[in-house]
Amino acid sequence: MVLALELVGTFAFAVSGALLAVKKGFDIVGSLLLASLAGLGGGVIRDVMLAQGVPTAFGAPLYLIPVALAVLVVFVRLIREDRLRRTLLAFDAVGLSLFCVMGSFIAYEAGLNPVACVLLGVTTAVGGGALRDVVANEVPQIFNPDGVYAAPAFLGAAATTTALELGIFNAFAAVGIAAGIFVIRFLALKFRWRVPLAVLRPGPVR
Amino acid sequence: MVLALELVGTFAFAVSGALLAVKKGFDIVGSLLLASLAGLGGGVIRDVMLAQGVPTAFGAPLYLIPVALAVLVVFVRLIREDRLRRTLLAFDAVGLSLFCVMGSFIAYEAGLNPVACVLLGVTTAVGGGALRDVVANEVPQIFNPDGVYAAPAFLGAAATTTALELGIFNAFAAVGIAAGIFVIRFLALKFRWRVPLAVLRPGPVR
Amino acid sequence: MVLALELVGTFAFAVSGALLAVKKGFDIVGSLLLASLAGLGGGVIRDVMLAQGVPTAFGAPLYLIPVALAVLVVFVRLIREDRLRRTLLAFDAVGLSLFCVMGSFIAYEAGLNPVACVLLGVTTAVGGGALRDVVANEVPQIFNPDGVYAAPAFLGAAATTTALELGIFNAFAAVGIAAGIFVIRFLALKFRWRVPLAVLRPGPVR
Repeated sequence: MVLALELVGTFAFAVSGALLAVKKGFDIVGSLLLASLAGLGGGVIRDVMLAQGVPTAFGAPLYLIPVALAVLVVFVRLIREDRLRRTLLAFDAVGLSLFCVMGSFIAYEAGLNPVACVLLGVTTAVGGGALRDVVANEVPQIFNPDGVYAAPAFLGAAATTTALELGIFNAFAAVGIAAGIFVIRFLALKFRWRVPLAVLRPGPVR
Repeated sequence: MVLALELVGTFAFAVSGALLAVKKGFDIVGSLLLASLAGLGGGVIRDVMLAQGVPTAFGAPLYLIPVALAVLVVFVRLIREDRLRRTLLAFDAVGLSLFCVMGSFIAYEAGLNPVACVLLGVTTAVGGGALRDVVANEVPQIFNPDGVYAAPAFLGAAATTTALELGIFNAFAAVGIAAGIFVIRFLALKFRWRVPLAVLRPGPVR
Repeated sequence: MVLALELVGTFAFAVSGALLAVKKGFDIVGSLLLASLAGLGGGVIRDVMLAQGVPTAFGAPLYLIPVALAVLVVFVRLIREDRLRRTLLAFDAVGLSLFCVMGSFIAYEAGLNPVACVLLGVTTAVGGGALRDVVANEVPQIFNPDGVYAAPAFLGAAATTTALELGIFNAFAAVGIAAGIFVIRFLALKFRWRVPLAVLRPGPVR
């Protein structure tokens, strides 16, 4: 079950990487690299932080299948890039929702304290997308003030950690929280929800 | 004592991250993420290199307090952003001075050889700021040839490692070295000190 | 022998870093940092993934010698920067060829499965150059669709892993595979070989 959700999340983020490769005019090998970074980067950062040996993305070849599949479906245009921005955002949101839940769960299993579980959930969720955007020389999605992005990941990681602490976390809870986070992210994009800027009443910047 | 200096350095770098978030027009969640990267990134890289389990920034929730505080003081404009560039540079310099000392000290405690202690001091000092700038899609401060930046960090890391080897390192030495490095960085900015360019007598670039 | 090839590869990538520092107008300390990232970054990422303690680049001060040497030869213009782009590409290609072989070999020695060995060979080969370009705020070489870049690294890592599995890997094989990969990269640049783009029949991007 854990594995299934991880693989779906990996596929979703990998599609977002392959679509960004299309947008930037990269070739198919670049698409494979960017899809790998997006799909596996968050999990690799999480595993390095947990310091429990070789990251699962390297240890288990299984994780390459959703990445290769993502590159393929984008290449043959099964996932069309002609409404590129919206499609990219949708797949990115699926990955975000699943990875904030899985990241917190895996950190909890590794015995970390609840605060660290929330932090690692957020890191797993935003890490892959941040790597994808930074390596492609774009300002990361996480910093786009149109619509909230990291805030739902915080929420999902906190809900997962709370459920784990209360002993009520299971497969249904995992899918439920992820679905809730996806809806929040979707509504945030549709209605252009915003969180306050980094400063109250900003003056002219010098 | 070690902890106190770490927390002050974290606060200083976190302020630099929150101020950069203001400059780039990010929202408060983006400010939190950029402040975390700037304040905790250098220490996390150091801990990953030392390979001694979960990085302290994740293991000890205490480290989040200076980050949250930094975002808050920037948000309510206790630290004003209207002389933004200068304020950002000042907080960045405090973080740089403290982290080159702390990075070398922690590497020494972990039993690394002196050369590695110097390298890890520099890495700790410039790592957080580099992550902050790279993720915000700016050319990192470390590469700005106006005023020296990494050179004082080298100096501070070398002085700390020497003091440790001679057995004369203590809390006073730590604060003394950090203060000296801050003054050097400050003078370098004020008088526009420069180190030689990467090439002797540069010709036209093709 | 392993060490010798590692040091030559480190020197080659470090030269590419120092030349990029010249191109970007950085000073000599920036050149040292960028040369370190380019020369040592791929190996450090590999060692962190292998989770076998402190990365060799930090544990063994010997690795700093090729980096310092690279910065020096660029500084005194022994390696001229007046045909900058071509020289940079040549040194980058030497590093790429050696590191895809060494990365796979070291991963194999660490007991990883063959797929992971190929992945880590590619990661070692493209990691340092990617860090170099990302930190200098350039679109990484790996994504340049003019001439193939990551594809030869895949080929070299796959050839090395196959040779290891068949028990026919030795110093001659290592140098032979690296030379073959260098020639392929060279021909790819000269004759502007291309791999297909990330999408079949790309339409206008929206």
